[in-house]
Amino acid sequence: MPKHVNHQERRMSIARALWSVVDQYGWSRATLREVAREAGISLGQLQHYFSSRSEMLAFAIDFSAEQSEQRIEQAIAELSQPPHPRDVLRIVLVDRLPLQPDARATSRMNAAYMLEATQDQALQELIKAGLRSGREKVERLIRQAIDDGQISPDRDAMVETDLVLSLSGLAPLVELGVIEPHEALRAIDQHLAQLFTSLPSPD
Amino acid sequence: MPKHVNHQERRMSIARALWSVVDQYGWSRATLREVAREAGISLGQLQHYFSSRSEMLAFAIDFSAEQSEQRIEQAIAELSQPPHPRDVLRIVLVDRLPLQPDARATSRMNAAYMLEATQDQALQELIKAGLRSGREKVERLIRQAIDDGQISPDRDAMVETDLVLSLSGLAPLVELGVIEPHEALRAIDQHLAQLFTSLPSPD
Repeated sequence: MPKHVNHQERRMSIARALWSVVDQYGWSRATLREVAREAGISLGQLQHYFSSRSEMLAFAIDFSAEQSEQRIEQAIAELSQPPHPRDVLRIVLVDRLPLQPDARATSRMNAAYMLEATQDQALQELIKAGLRSGREKVERLIRQAIDDGQISPDRDAMVETDLVLSLSGLAPLVELGVIEPHEALRAIDQHLAQLFTSLPSPD
Repeated sequence: MPKHVNHQERRMSIARALWSVVDQYGWSRATLREVAREAGISLGQLQHYFSSRSEMLAFAIDFSAEQSEQRIEQAIAELSQPPHPRDVLRIVLVDRLPLQPDARATSRMNAAYMLEATQDQALQELIKAGLRSGREKVERLIRQAIDDGQISPDRDAMVETDLVLSLSGLAPLVELGVIEPHEALRAIDQHLAQLFTSLPSPD
């Protein structure tokens, strides 16, 4: 196996150790030392892969975004082809809810990244770039659906994009047990049903 | 001035010092020692008011909820009376956006509380209780608006409540600069306009 594959695999296993530390002990314990312990390697070994906490976090953010993208692509591939844009948006939105262990760790990590980003300009740019690219994807999908007559042409694509993105606000409410998972799913379905309803024209 | 007023005022000034530490240096620096330094008192004096970090956070959460409620009540009092429920919801939702210094500190603190709550059962219960009571208020307002014919009776009050709450998902997007404040306001206005539109009945 080539050396760079081992390198990448070790970095991924360190990212998983980071999530596990955060999940078990909270964000304040997510130091290089604790993560090394969780990964079963020495601090020196960990520093071979990440020279700073900030670098480790940046990698973990990229890795979790990649994993979420893979889960989403796989779920979309299982839809009847070509998939209806409503079903694609549903998969994206449901993936952001803390409904399964992987997504739960992601949702918790996202809160931590957000907080860390307010103090770390490089992390903030990384997170912003990821969120902006997500926003552009949703916008393209909605514009296409308007062109294809699946969404009424009197809808504003940009506003509808931001309303779809805002549904990620359900995640912390589910995480804290304020809203039950089935209620969050109903809210998502209801929002999408309204978005994809062609209203009768007023004349 | 009676002693308990001084006590409460001192606690509020400590809560403000906590926000200021978080705003300047990030959550990881929000220790009793740092907050005491920011408040210009000794660690021993601070411990006279809060015996633990958790107690200090719980007070700060209550205090920021109270401040937000006061801002909201004042804004509602300035509406023409009786206020339209759409305008009341707008005030509640806009207050959650990081648009002015007070609300910005609150939005950042909320992310921190969320994270802390995953490790601290007492804090989690406190935050959950606050969010549940907020959810009940929104639900009552929406049920009343349905009864008063301001929202179509074929809307599900619970689902519409959760969709309104989910708009708080705009706050982190504004905080990170992914969405501009005016775009978040347009999204809120558009959502409320749709909620308060009586759709023509299908027959």
